[in-house]
Amino acid sequence: MAEVLPLRRTPAGVPVASCTLAHESKQIEAGLSRDVSVELQAVAVGDLAAVLAVAAPGCAIRATGFMAARSMRSRSPVLHLNTIEFLEGN
Amino acid sequence: MAEVLPLRRTPAGVPVASCTLAHESKQIEAGLSRDVSVELQAVAVGDLAAVLAVAAPGCAIRATGFMAARSMRSRSPVLHLNTIEFLEGN
Repeated sequence: MAEVLPLRRTPAGVPVASCTLAHESKQIEAGLSRDVSVELQAVAVGDLAAVLAVAAPGCAIRATGFMAARSMRSRSPVLHLNTIEFLEGN
Repeated sequence: MAEVLPLRRTPAGVPVASCTLAHESKQIEAGLSRDVSVELQAVAVGDLAAVLAVAAPGCAIRATGFMAARSMRSRSPVLHLNTIEFLEGN
């Protein structure tokens, strides 16, 4: 969890929380092990938003979800979280 | 497969192919079904690069891989492909 933004609400009143997730691991590519790092913008909607909004920056999580374009205007991918499991440091 | 770029080689001679993948589906978020669309930049390295480079734009694929930052300078996420399965239209 690199950064967590405060809880906000959509015009319809649905809670939304945003964060930046930073991931590091080793992955296999073309038969060779390589170091991987990636940062993803992520959001949680509804009940999960309150969980995300109080997460401490620097805490480790395991998450599942799906990728979607940010908006009609910005097609950059955002990870929509379906589950968040806190691993340590929170 | 929205766009496929020609095969190139790294300075070390490793073949690399790049493409843009467009995805559409329905996903569940906060208990509600929603339409999702997303575009991801993707690359294939090594033997898989030659497979990707000859894919027809518009063809449907199922792919697996991992996300990694494009480079040290650009932290935008890129999907590194480990498997490509052609489904139709290729």
